[in-house]
Amino acid sequence: MTTPGKVRIGVFDSGFGGLTVLRALLPQIPSAEFFYLGDTARLPYGSKSQATVARYAVESAQLLESYGADYLVIACNTASALALDAIKSAAHVPVLGVIETGAGSAAAASATRDVLVLATQATVDSHAYARACAAHGLRSIEKACPLLVPLIEEGWTDQPVTREVLRIYLQQAQTESKAAGLAFDTVLLGCTHYPLLRGLLREALPEDVTILDSAESTAQRVRAQLESLKSLATNHSRPGDANVAVCHFFATDSVDKFRTLGSRFLGQPIEKVELIDLGG
Amino acid sequence: MTTPGKVRIGVFDSGFGGLTVLRALLPQIPSAEFFYLGDTARLPYGSKSQATVARYAVESAQLLESYGADYLVIACNTASALALDAIKSAAHVPVLGVIETGAGSAAAASATRDVLVLATQATVDSHAYARACAAHGLRSIEKACPLLVPLIEEGWTDQPVTREVLRIYLQQAQTESKAAGLAFDTVLLGCTHYPLLRGLLREALPEDVTILDSAESTAQRVRAQLESLKSLATNHSRPGDANVAVCHFFATDSVDKFRTLGSRFLGQPIEKVELIDLGG
Repeated sequence: MTTPGKVRIGVFDSGFGGLTVLRALLPQIPSAEFFYLGDTARLPYGSKSQATVARYAVESAQLLESYGADYLVIACNTASALALDAIKSAAHVPVLGVIETGAGSAAAASATRDVLVLATQATVDSHAYARACAAHGLRSIEKACPLLVPLIEEGWTDQPVTREVLRIYLQQAQTESKAAGLAFDTVLLGCTHYPLLRGLLREALPEDVTILDSAESTAQRVRAQLESLKSLATNHSRPGDANVAVCHFFATDSVDKFRTLGSRFLGQPIEKVELIDLGG
Repeated sequence: MTTPGKVRIGVFDSGFGGLTVLRALLPQIPSAEFFYLGDTARLPYGSKSQATVARYAVESAQLLESYGADYLVIACNTASALALDAIKSAAHVPVLGVIETGAGSAAAASATRDVLVLATQATVDSHAYARACAAHGLRSIEKACPLLVPLIEEGWTDQPVTREVLRIYLQQAQTESKAAGLAFDTVLLGCTHYPLLRGLLREALPEDVTILDSAESTAQRVRAQLESLKSLATNHSRPGDANVAVCHFFATDSVDKFRTLGSRFLGQPIEKVELIDLGG
Protein backbone atom coordinates (compact mmCIF):
# COMPACT_ATOMS: atom_id res chain seq x y z
CA MET A 1 0.00 0.00 0.00
CA THR A 2 2.84 2.41 0.75
CA THR A 3 4.92 4.28 -1.82
CA PRO A 4 8.71 3.82 -1.42
CA GLY A 5 10.73 6.89 -0.44
CA LYS A 6 7.82 9.04 0.75
CA VAL A 7 7.32 10.05 4.37
CA ARG A 8 4.08 8.50 5.56
CA ILE A 9 1.81 10.69 7.68
CA GLY A 10 -1.17 9.20 9.46
CA VAL A 11 -4.00 11.68 10.08
CA PHE A 12 -6.72 10.62 12.47
CA ASP A 13 -10.14 12.08 13.27
CA SER A 14 -13.44 10.76 14.60
CA GLY A 15 -15.00 11.69 11.27
CA PHE A 16 -14.68 14.27 8.53
CA GLY A 17 -13.53 17.42 10.32
CA GLY A 18 -9.89 16.35 10.34
CA LEU A 19 -9.97 16.65 6.57
CA THR A 20 -9.63 20.43 7.10
CA VAL A 21 -6.25 19.62 8.69
CA LEU A 22 -5.31 17.32 5.81
CA ARG A 23 -6.34 20.11 3.44
CA ALA A 24 -3.79 22.40 5.13
CA LEU A 25 -1.12 19.66 5.20
CA LEU A 26 -1.25 18.90 1.45
CA PRO A 27 0.39 22.12 0.21
CA GLN A 28 2.82 22.19 3.18
CA ILE A 29 4.17 18.67 2.68
CA PRO A 30 3.31 17.77 -0.89
CA SER A 31 5.92 15.05 -1.05
CA ALA A 32 4.26 12.94 1.67
CA GLU A 33 1.98 9.95 1.51
CA PHE A 34 -1.09 10.53 3.71
CA PHE A 35 -3.24 7.92 5.46
CA TYR A 36 -6.45 9.50 6.73
CA LEU A 37 -8.69 7.52 9.08
CA GLY A 38 -12.17 8.69 10.09
CA ASP A 39 -13.70 6.57 12.86
CA THR A 40 -17.16 7.33 11.48
CA ALA A 41 -18.87 4.26 12.99
CA ARG A 42 -18.26 5.65 16.48
CA LEU A 43 -18.51 9.41 15.95
CA PRO A 44 -19.10 11.86 17.48
CA TYR A 45 -16.41 11.69 20.16
CA GLY A 46 -17.35 15.15 21.48
CA SER A 47 -20.19 13.92 23.70
CA LYS A 48 -18.39 10.86 25.09
CA SER A 49 -16.27 10.09 28.14
CA GLN A 50 -12.50 10.28 28.46
CA ALA A 51 -12.12 6.50 28.85
CA THR A 52 -14.18 5.73 25.75
CA VAL A 53 -12.49 8.38 23.59
CA ALA A 54 -9.04 7.18 24.69
CA ARG A 55 -9.87 3.57 23.81
CA TYR A 56 -11.20 4.53 20.38
CA ALA A 57 -8.31 6.89 19.61
CA VAL A 58 -5.58 4.45 20.63
CA GLU A 59 -7.09 1.73 18.42
CA SER A 60 -7.21 4.14 15.50
CA ALA A 61 -3.64 5.36 16.04
CA GLN A 62 -2.37 1.78 16.21
CA LEU A 63 -4.10 0.98 12.95
CA LEU A 64 -2.44 3.92 11.20
CA GLU A 65 0.93 2.85 12.57
CA SER A 66 0.31 -0.68 11.29
CA TYR A 67 -0.19 0.91 7.83
CA GLY A 68 3.36 2.23 8.07
CA ALA A 69 2.79 5.79 9.33
CA ASP A 70 6.09 7.47 10.34
CA TYR A 71 4.26 10.31 12.04
CA LEU A 72 0.77 10.71 13.51
CA VAL A 73 -1.38 13.84 13.45
CA ILE A 74 -4.35 13.67 15.81
CA ALA A 75 -6.59 16.00 13.82
CA CYS A 76 -9.50 15.56 16.23
CA ASN A 77 -9.71 18.17 18.97
CA THR A 78 -11.62 15.86 21.32
CA ALA A 79 -9.09 13.03 20.91
CA SER A 80 -6.20 15.50 21.28
CA ALA A 81 -7.78 16.88 24.45
CA LEU A 82 -8.70 13.58 26.06
CA ALA A 83 -6.33 10.98 24.68
CA LEU A 84 -3.04 12.51 23.51
CA ASP A 85 -1.00 11.02 26.36
CA ALA A 86 -2.62 7.61 25.87
CA ILE A 87 -1.87 7.73 22.14
CA LYS A 88 1.75 8.82 22.72
CA SER A 89 2.21 5.94 25.18
CA ALA A 90 0.81 3.41 22.70
CA ALA A 91 2.59 4.75 19.59
CA HIS A 92 6.17 4.16 18.43
CA VAL A 93 6.34 7.24 16.18
CA PRO A 94 6.04 11.00 16.88
CA VAL A 95 2.48 12.16 17.62
CA LEU A 96 1.15 15.71 17.26
CA GLY A 97 -2.23 16.94 18.53
CA VAL A 98 -4.11 20.06 17.47
CA ILE A 99 -4.63 21.63 20.91
CA GLU A 100 -1.05 22.73 21.52
CA THR A 101 -0.63 24.16 18.00
CA GLY A 102 -3.94 26.02 18.33
CA ALA A 103 -2.91 27.55 21.64
CA GLY A 104 0.44 28.51 20.14
CA SER A 105 -1.18 30.40 17.29
CA ALA A 106 -3.53 32.16 19.74
CA ALA A 107 -0.49 33.25 21.77
CA ALA A 108 1.03 34.78 18.64
CA ALA A 109 -2.21 36.63 17.75
CA SER A 110 -3.65 37.94 21.03
CA ALA A 111 -2.80 41.41 22.33
CA THR A 112 -5.16 41.31 25.35
CA ARG A 113 -3.86 37.80 26.23
CA ASP A 114 -7.51 36.70 26.61
CA VAL A 115 -8.86 34.01 24.28
CA LEU A 116 -12.30 32.49 23.64
CA VAL A 117 -12.17 28.79 22.73
CA LEU A 118 -15.21 27.28 20.98
CA ALA A 119 -15.26 23.48 21.17
CA THR A 120 -17.28 20.31 21.81
CA GLN A 121 -18.59 19.45 25.27
CA ALA A 122 -15.92 16.79 25.87
CA THR A 123 -13.07 19.11 24.81
CA VAL A 124 -14.38 21.87 27.09
CA ASP A 125 -14.87 19.46 29.99
CA SER A 126 -11.24 18.32 29.65
CA HIS A 127 -9.97 21.94 29.95
CA ALA A 128 -7.08 20.93 27.69
CA TYR A 129 -7.28 24.28 25.86
CA ALA A 130 -7.30 26.24 29.12
CA ARG A 131 -4.11 24.44 30.20
CA ALA A 132 -2.43 24.85 26.81
CA CYS A 133 -3.37 28.57 26.74
CA ALA A 134 -2.15 29.08 30.33
CA ALA A 135 1.22 27.57 29.36
CA HIS A 136 1.50 30.47 26.87
CA GLY A 137 0.46 33.05 29.49
CA LEU A 138 -3.06 33.36 28.06
CA ARG A 139 -6.34 33.44 29.98
CA SER A 140 -9.24 31.66 28.31
CA ILE A 141 -12.98 31.08 28.33
CA GLU A 142 -13.99 27.67 26.96
CA LYS A 143 -17.49 27.50 25.46
CA ALA A 144 -19.14 24.21 24.47
CA CYS A 145 -21.17 24.47 21.23
CA PRO A 146 -22.81 21.03 20.78
CA LEU A 147 -25.22 22.13 18.03
CA LEU A 148 -22.61 23.38 15.58
CA VAL A 149 -21.42 19.99 14.31
CA PRO A 150 -24.97 18.75 13.55
CA LEU A 151 -25.82 22.08 11.85
CA ILE A 152 -22.69 21.82 9.68
CA GLU A 153 -23.38 18.17 8.84
CA GLU A 154 -26.97 19.17 7.88
CA GLY A 155 -25.33 21.60 5.44
CA TRP A 156 -26.95 24.64 7.10
CA THR A 157 -23.75 26.70 7.04
CA ASP A 158 -25.58 29.81 5.76
CA GLN A 159 -28.99 29.52 7.47
CA PRO A 160 -30.67 32.07 9.79
CA VAL A 161 -31.07 29.25 12.33
CA THR A 162 -27.31 28.74 12.44
CA ARG A 163 -26.77 32.51 12.80
CA GLU A 164 -29.17 32.48 15.75
CA VAL A 165 -27.48 29.48 17.40
CA LEU A 166 -24.09 31.20 17.00
CA ARG A 167 -25.54 34.44 18.42
CA ILE A 168 -26.80 32.56 21.52
CA TYR A 169 -23.51 30.73 22.07
CA LEU A 170 -21.42 33.90 21.59
CA GLN A 171 -23.70 35.89 23.89
CA GLN A 172 -23.37 33.22 26.59
CA ALA A 173 -19.58 33.25 26.11
CA GLN A 174 -19.47 37.05 26.28
CA THR A 175 -21.46 37.05 29.54
CA GLU A 176 -19.16 34.43 31.03
CA SER A 177 -16.10 36.30 29.80
CA LYS A 178 -17.21 39.59 31.36
CA ALA A 179 -18.08 37.89 34.65
CA ALA A 180 -14.55 36.49 34.73
CA GLY A 181 -13.05 39.90 33.90
CA LEU A 182 -11.70 38.82 30.50
CA ALA A 183 -11.68 40.82 27.24
CA PHE A 184 -10.97 38.32 24.47
CA ASP A 185 -9.59 39.58 21.16
CA THR A 186 -9.04 36.11 19.69
CA VAL A 187 -11.47 33.25 19.02
CA LEU A 188 -9.91 29.84 18.65
CA LEU A 189 -11.98 27.27 16.73
CA GLY A 190 -11.40 24.18 18.87
CA CYS A 191 -13.21 21.74 16.60
CA THR A 192 -12.20 20.87 13.05
CA HIS A 193 -15.79 21.29 11.81
CA TYR A 194 -16.01 24.92 12.82
CA PRO A 195 -13.89 26.42 9.99
CA LEU A 196 -16.94 25.79 7.78
CA LEU A 197 -18.75 28.46 9.86
CA ARG A 198 -15.92 30.99 9.56
CA GLY A 199 -18.06 33.30 7.40
CA LEU A 200 -20.96 33.42 9.86
CA LEU A 201 -18.56 33.83 12.79
CA ARG A 202 -16.83 36.72 11.01
CA GLU A 203 -20.24 38.44 10.68
CA ALA A 204 -21.18 37.75 14.30
CA LEU A 205 -17.93 38.94 15.91
CA PRO A 206 -16.47 42.47 16.15
CA GLU A 207 -14.01 43.33 13.38
CA ASP A 208 -11.01 43.52 15.70
CA VAL A 209 -11.47 39.95 16.95
CA THR A 210 -9.14 37.46 15.26
CA ILE A 211 -10.56 34.02 14.33
CA LEU A 212 -8.07 31.15 14.31
CA ASP A 213 -8.30 27.47 13.58
CA SER A 214 -5.73 24.79 14.27
CA ALA A 215 -5.47 23.39 10.76
CA GLU A 216 -2.93 25.83 9.33
CA SER A 217 -0.76 26.04 12.46
CA THR A 218 -0.80 22.25 12.81
CA ALA A 219 0.29 21.79 9.20
CA GLN A 220 3.18 24.24 9.69
CA ARG A 221 4.25 22.47 12.88
CA VAL A 222 4.20 19.04 11.22
CA ARG A 223 6.38 20.36 8.41
CA ALA A 224 8.85 21.96 10.83
CA GLN A 225 9.08 18.81 12.94
CA LEU A 226 9.56 16.56 9.94
CA GLU A 227 12.29 18.84 8.61
CA SER A 228 14.03 18.82 11.98
CA LEU A 229 13.76 15.03 11.98
CA LYS A 230 15.47 15.17 8.58
CA SER A 231 12.76 12.90 7.25
CA LEU A 232 12.18 15.31 4.40
CA ALA A 233 14.88 16.11 1.92
CA THR A 234 14.86 19.88 1.26
CA ASN A 235 13.96 19.47 -2.37
CA HIS A 236 10.86 17.52 -1.41
CA SER A 237 9.20 20.33 0.53
CA ARG A 238 7.85 22.70 -2.03
CA PRO A 239 4.78 24.58 -0.72
CA GLY A 240 2.08 24.87 -3.35
CA ASP A 241 3.07 21.75 -5.22
CA ALA A 242 0.24 19.54 -3.97
CA ASN A 243 -0.03 17.32 -6.98
CA VAL A 244 2.48 14.72 -5.90
CA ALA A 245 0.93 13.99 -2.50
CA VAL A 246 -0.72 10.59 -2.29
CA CYS A 247 -3.78 10.20 -0.05
CA HIS A 248 -5.40 7.01 1.20
CA PHE A 249 -8.75 7.29 2.97
CA PHE A 250 -10.20 4.87 5.51
CA ALA A 251 -13.52 4.96 7.36
CA THR A 252 -15.25 2.66 9.84
CA ASP A 253 -18.78 3.41 8.53
CA SER A 254 -20.40 4.14 5.15
CA VAL A 255 -17.75 4.96 2.55
CA ASP A 256 -20.38 6.66 0.36
CA LYS A 257 -21.22 9.16 3.08
CA PHE A 258 -17.49 9.70 3.66
CA ARG A 259 -16.96 10.53 -0.01
CA THR A 260 -19.92 12.93 -0.15
CA LEU A 261 -19.50 14.78 3.14
CA GLY A 262 -15.71 14.45 3.24
CA SER A 263 -15.23 16.16 -0.11
CA ARG A 264 -16.81 19.32 1.39
CA PHE A 265 -14.28 19.35 4.22
CA LEU A 266 -11.28 18.51 2.05
CA GLY A 267 -12.31 21.01 -0.62
CA GLN A 268 -11.69 18.51 -3.40
CA PRO A 269 -13.32 15.25 -4.48
CA ILE A 270 -12.50 12.07 -2.61
CA GLU A 271 -12.63 9.15 -4.96
CA LYS A 272 -11.74 6.00 -3.08
CA VAL A 273 -12.46 5.20 0.57
CA GLU A 274 -11.71 1.87 2.16
CA LEU A 275 -14.08 0.49 4.81
CA ILE A 276 -12.25 -0.91 7.81
CA ASP A 277 -13.41 -2.67 10.97
CA LEU A 278 -12.00 -1.57 14.31
CA GLY A 279 -14.18 -4.14 16.07
CA GLY A 280 -16.46 -1.47 17.56
CA MET B 1 -29.08 -10.26 39.16
CA THR B 2 -32.60 -11.46 38.27
CA THR B 3 -35.57 -11.64 40.63
CA PRO B 4 -37.28 -15.08 40.75
CA GLY B 5 -40.84 -15.28 39.39
CA LYS B 6 -40.78 -12.01 37.46
CA VAL B 7 -40.94 -11.83 33.67
CA ARG B 8 -37.71 -10.24 32.46
CA ILE B 9 -38.00 -7.67 29.69
CA GLY B 10 -34.92 -6.37 27.93
CA VAL B 11 -35.29 -2.86 26.48
CA PHE B 12 -32.64 -1.68 24.07
CA ASP B 13 -31.84 1.72 22.59
CA SER B 14 -28.76 3.45 21.20
CA GLY B 15 -29.03 5.92 24.08
CA PHE B 16 -31.62 7.61 26.24
CA GLY B 17 -34.66 7.96 23.96
CA GLY B 18 -35.82 4.40 24.58
CA LEU B 19 -36.44 5.41 28.18
CA THR B 20 -39.68 7.02 26.90
CA VAL B 21 -40.73 3.48 25.91
CA LEU B 22 -39.68 2.08 29.30
CA ARG B 23 -41.66 4.91 30.89
CA ALA B 24 -44.78 3.68 29.07
CA LEU B 25 -44.00 0.03 29.88
CA LEU B 26 -43.73 0.50 33.66
CA PRO B 27 -47.45 1.13 34.38
CA GLN B 28 -48.52 -1.46 31.76
CA ILE B 29 -46.44 -4.33 33.14
CA PRO B 30 -45.63 -3.34 36.71
CA SER B 31 -44.85 -6.88 37.72
CA ALA B 32 -41.89 -7.20 35.34
CA GLU B 33 -38.17 -6.89 35.85
CA PHE B 34 -36.67 -4.54 33.24
CA PHE B 35 -33.14 -4.51 31.84
CA TYR B 36 -32.49 -1.31 29.91
CA LEU B 37 -29.36 -1.02 27.78
CA GLY B 38 -28.26 2.26 26.17
CA ASP B 39 -25.36 1.81 23.74
CA THR B 40 -24.21 5.34 24.52
CA ALA B 41 -20.57 4.80 23.51
CA ARG B 42 -21.66 4.30 19.89
CA LEU B 43 -24.67 6.61 19.58
CA PRO B 44 -26.17 8.09 17.53
CA TYR B 45 -27.24 5.21 15.28
CA GLY B 46 -29.40 7.55 13.17
CA SER B 47 -26.56 8.74 10.95
CA LYS B 48 -24.88 5.34 10.44
CA SER B 49 -25.09 2.56 7.87
CA GLN B 50 -27.32 -0.51 7.95
CA ALA B 51 -24.40 -2.91 8.42
CA THR B 52 -22.95 -0.97 11.34
CA VAL B 53 -26.31 -0.48 13.09
CA ALA B 54 -27.15 -4.19 12.66
CA ARG B 55 -23.81 -5.23 14.16
CA TYR B 56 -24.23 -2.92 17.16
CA ALA B 57 -27.88 -3.87 17.75
CA VAL B 58 -27.28 -7.62 17.57
CA GLU B 59 -24.44 -7.36 20.11
CA SER B 60 -26.70 -5.36 22.43
CA ALA B 61 -29.64 -7.77 22.08
CA GLN B 62 -27.38 -10.74 22.79
CA LEU B 63 -26.10 -9.05 25.93
CA LEU B 64 -29.65 -8.49 27.21
CA GLU B 65 -30.50 -12.11 26.47
CA SER B 66 -27.41 -13.20 28.40
CA TYR B 67 -28.80 -11.23 31.35
CA GLY B 68 -31.86 -13.50 31.28
CA ALA B 69 -34.33 -11.42 29.23
CA ASP B 70 -37.44 -13.43 28.26
CA TYR B 71 -38.58 -10.78 25.81
CA LEU B 72 -36.79 -8.03 23.90
CA VAL B 73 -38.16 -4.59 23.05
CA ILE B 74 -36.10 -2.73 20.45
CA ALA B 75 -36.99 0.76 21.64
CA CYS B 76 -34.72 2.42 19.07
CA ASN B 77 -36.43 3.40 15.82
CA THR B 78 -33.20 3.24 13.82
CA ALA B 79 -32.34 -0.26 15.10
CA SER B 80 -35.95 -1.39 14.55
CA ALA B 81 -35.84 -0.02 11.01
CA LEU B 82 -32.43 -1.37 10.02
CA ALA B 83 -31.78 -4.40 12.17
CA LEU B 84 -35.01 -6.06 13.37
CA ASP B 85 -34.60 -9.11 11.15
CA ALA B 86 -30.95 -9.48 12.16
CA ILE B 87 -31.88 -9.25 15.85
CA LYS B 88 -34.72 -11.76 15.46
CA SER B 89 -32.36 -14.19 13.74
CA ALA B 90 -29.79 -13.86 16.51
CA ALA B 91 -32.22 -13.96 19.47
CA HIS B 92 -33.86 -16.96 21.11
CA VAL B 93 -36.75 -15.00 22.67
CA PRO B 94 -39.60 -12.90 21.16
CA VAL B 95 -38.47 -9.53 19.78
CA LEU B 96 -40.69 -6.47 19.24
CA GLY B 97 -39.65 -3.32 17.37
CA VAL B 98 -41.30 0.09 17.52
CA ILE B 99 -41.92 0.63 13.79
CA GLU B 100 -44.76 -1.86 13.38
CA THR B 101 -46.55 -0.71 16.53
CA GLY B 102 -46.21 2.94 15.46
CA ALA B 103 -47.65 2.20 12.02
CA GLY B 104 -50.50 0.28 13.68
CA SER B 105 -51.45 3.22 15.87
CA ALA B 106 -51.31 5.55 12.84
CA ALA B 107 -53.68 3.21 10.98
CA ALA B 108 -56.13 3.44 13.88
CA ALA B 109 -55.93 7.25 14.00
CA SER B 110 -55.85 8.44 10.38
CA ALA B 111 -59.04 9.31 8.48
CA THR B 112 -57.30 10.55 5.30
CA ARG B 113 -55.04 7.45 5.32
CA ASP B 114 -52.06 9.77 4.79
CA VAL B 115 -49.35 9.95 7.43
CA LEU B 116 -46.24 12.10 7.98
CA VAL B 117 -43.37 10.24 9.66
CA LEU B 118 -40.61 12.30 11.32
CA ALA B 119 -37.44 10.28 11.94
CA THR B 120 -33.64 10.13 11.76
CA GLN B 121 -31.81 10.01 8.43
CA ALA B 122 -31.06 6.29 8.71
CA THR B 123 -34.67 5.40 9.56
CA VAL B 124 -35.95 7.45 6.62
CA ASP B 125 -33.37 5.95 4.26
CA SER B 126 -34.51 2.46 5.24
CA HIS B 127 -38.16 3.25 4.33
CA ALA B 128 -39.21 0.84 7.08
CA TYR B 129 -42.05 3.16 8.14
CA ALA B 130 -43.29 3.52 4.55
CA ARG B 131 -43.47 -0.26 4.25
CA ALA B 132 -45.14 -0.72 7.64
CA CYS B 133 -47.68 2.03 6.81
CA ALA B 134 -48.37 0.55 3.38
CA ALA B 135 -49.11 -2.80 5.02
CA HIS B 136 -51.93 -0.98 6.85
CA GLY B 137 -53.19 0.69 3.66
CA LEU B 138 -51.63 4.05 4.56
CA ARG B 139 -49.65 6.38 2.33
CA SER B 140 -46.75 8.16 3.97
CA ILE B 141 -44.18 10.93 3.65
CA GLU B 142 -40.96 10.23 5.57
CA LYS B 143 -39.03 13.34 6.67
CA ALA B 144 -35.51 13.16 8.13
CA CYS B 145 -34.95 15.65 10.97
CA PRO B 146 -31.26 15.27 11.95
CA LEU B 147 -31.12 18.41 14.12
CA LEU B 148 -33.90 17.44 16.53
CA VAL B 149 -31.91 14.94 18.62
CA PRO B 150 -29.00 17.37 19.23
CA LEU B 151 -31.45 20.19 20.07
CA ILE B 152 -33.24 17.94 22.59
CA GLU B 153 -29.95 16.77 24.09
CA GLU B 154 -28.87 20.43 24.40
CA GLY B 155 -32.06 20.90 26.47
CA TRP B 156 -33.46 23.47 24.01
CA THR B 157 -36.96 21.96 24.00
CA ASP B 158 -38.62 25.37 24.37
CA GLN B 159 -36.29 27.65 22.38
CA PRO B 160 -37.19 29.89 19.41
CA VAL B 161 -34.36 28.20 17.48
CA THR B 162 -36.03 24.81 17.93
CA ARG B 163 -39.39 26.28 16.84
CA GLU B 164 -37.69 27.61 13.70
CA VAL B 165 -35.97 24.29 12.93
CA LEU B 166 -39.33 22.50 13.33
CA ARG B 167 -41.01 25.11 11.13
CA ILE B 168 -38.43 24.50 8.37
CA TYR B 169 -38.70 20.71 8.59
CA LEU B 170 -42.54 20.77 8.63
CA GLN B 171 -42.63 23.21 5.72
CA GLN B 172 -40.31 20.95 3.69
CA ALA B 173 -42.51 17.97 4.59
CA GLN B 174 -45.69 19.85 3.63
CA THR B 175 -44.20 20.80 0.25
CA GLU B 176 -43.17 17.21 -0.38
CA SER B 177 -46.56 15.94 0.77
CA LYS B 178 -48.49 18.26 -1.56
CA ALA B 179 -46.24 17.38 -4.49
CA ALA B 180 -47.05 13.72 -3.88
CA GLY B 181 -50.80 14.47 -3.61
CA LEU B 182 -51.03 13.52 0.08
CA ALA B 183 -53.03 15.25 2.83
CA PHE B 184 -51.68 13.92 6.12
CA ASP B 185 -53.86 14.17 9.23
CA THR B 186 -51.48 12.18 11.44
CA VAL B 187 -47.85 12.80 12.40
CA LEU B 188 -45.96 9.79 13.66
CA LEU B 189 -42.89 10.53 15.82
CA GLY B 190 -40.44 7.98 14.46
CA CYS B 191 -37.67 8.65 16.97
CA THR B 192 -37.93 8.11 20.72
CA HIS B 193 -36.40 11.54 21.41
CA TYR B 194 -39.15 13.44 19.64
CA PRO B 195 -41.90 13.09 22.32
CA LEU B 196 -39.92 15.73 24.25
CA LEU B 197 -40.87 18.17 21.46
CA ARG B 198 -44.56 17.26 21.53
CA GLY B 199 -45.50 20.68 22.93
CA LEU B 200 -43.71 22.61 20.16
CA LEU B 201 -45.05 20.25 17.51
CA ARG B 202 -48.59 20.73 18.82
CA GLU B 203 -48.14 24.51 18.40
CA ALA B 204 -46.65 24.16 14.92
CA LEU B 205 -49.26 21.78 13.47
CA PRO B 206 -52.95 22.41 12.66
CA GLU B 207 -55.33 21.42 15.47
CA ASP B 208 -56.93 18.57 13.52
CA VAL B 209 -53.58 16.79 13.01
CA THR B 210 -53.01 13.91 15.44
CA ILE B 211 -49.50 13.45 16.91
CA LEU B 212 -48.54 9.90 17.80
CA ASP B 213 -45.46 8.29 19.26
CA SER B 214 -44.64 4.60 19.46
CA ALA B 215 -44.02 4.41 23.20
CA GLU B 216 -47.62 3.90 24.38
CA SER B 217 -48.65 1.57 21.54
CA THR B 218 -45.47 -0.47 21.98
CA ALA B 219 -46.10 -0.86 25.70
CA GLN B 220 -49.66 -2.04 25.06
CA ARG B 221 -48.46 -4.52 22.45
CA VAL B 222 -45.80 -5.94 24.78
CA ARG B 223 -48.41 -6.44 27.49
CA ALA B 224 -50.85 -8.14 25.10
CA GLN B 225 -48.15 -10.43 23.73
CA LEU B 226 -46.90 -11.39 27.16
CA GLU B 227 -50.45 -12.14 28.29
CA SER B 228 -51.04 -14.29 25.23
CA LEU B 229 -47.78 -16.08 25.99
CA LYS B 230 -49.25 -16.71 29.46
CA SER B 231 -46.02 -15.39 30.91
CA LEU B 232 -47.97 -13.04 33.12
CA ALA B 233 -50.42 -14.27 35.73
CA THR B 234 -53.56 -12.09 35.61
CA ASN B 235 -53.06 -10.82 39.12
CA HIS B 236 -49.61 -9.53 38.20
CA SER B 237 -50.78 -7.10 35.52
CA ARG B 238 -52.27 -4.15 37.33
CA PRO B 239 -51.92 -0.95 35.29
CA GLY B 240 -50.96 1.99 37.44
CA ASP B 241 -49.15 -0.05 40.06
CA ALA B 242 -45.62 0.75 38.95
CA ASN B 243 -43.98 0.41 42.31
CA VAL B 244 -43.17 -3.26 42.09
CA ALA B 245 -41.34 -3.07 38.76
CA VAL B 246 -37.61 -3.53 39.09
CA CYS B 247 -35.32 -1.71 36.64
CA HIS B 248 -31.66 -2.32 35.92
CA PHE B 249 -29.82 0.21 33.76
CA PHE B 250 -26.73 -0.42 31.64
CA ALA B 251 -24.75 1.98 29.45
CA THR B 252 -21.62 1.65 27.32
CA ASP B 253 -20.42 5.22 28.05
CA SER B 254 -20.48 7.66 31.00
CA VAL B 255 -22.93 6.46 33.65
CA ASP B 256 -23.10 9.98 35.12
CA LYS B 257 -24.38 11.41 31.85
CA PHE B 258 -26.86 8.52 31.59
CA ARG B 259 -28.24 9.29 35.04
CA THR B 260 -28.57 13.03 34.34
CA LEU B 261 -29.96 12.96 30.81
CA GLY B 262 -31.80 9.65 31.22
CA SER B 263 -33.85 10.87 34.16
CA ARG B 264 -35.38 13.53 31.88
CA PHE B 265 -36.51 10.88 29.40
CA LEU B 266 -37.74 8.41 32.03
CA GLY B 267 -39.53 11.14 33.98
CA GLN B 268 -38.11 9.89 37.27
CA PRO B 269 -34.66 9.75 38.82
CA ILE B 270 -32.28 6.99 37.75
CA GLU B 271 -30.04 6.06 40.64
CA LYS B 272 -27.76 3.25 39.56
CA VAL B 273 -26.30 2.65 36.11
CA GLU B 274 -23.79 -0.08 35.34
CA LEU B 275 -21.04 0.58 32.80
CA ILE B 276 -20.59 -2.30 30.37
CA ASP B 277 -18.17 -2.93 27.54
CA LEU B 278 -19.48 -4.18 24.21
CA GLY B 279 -15.97 -4.13 22.80
CA GLY B 280 -16.70 -1.12 20.59
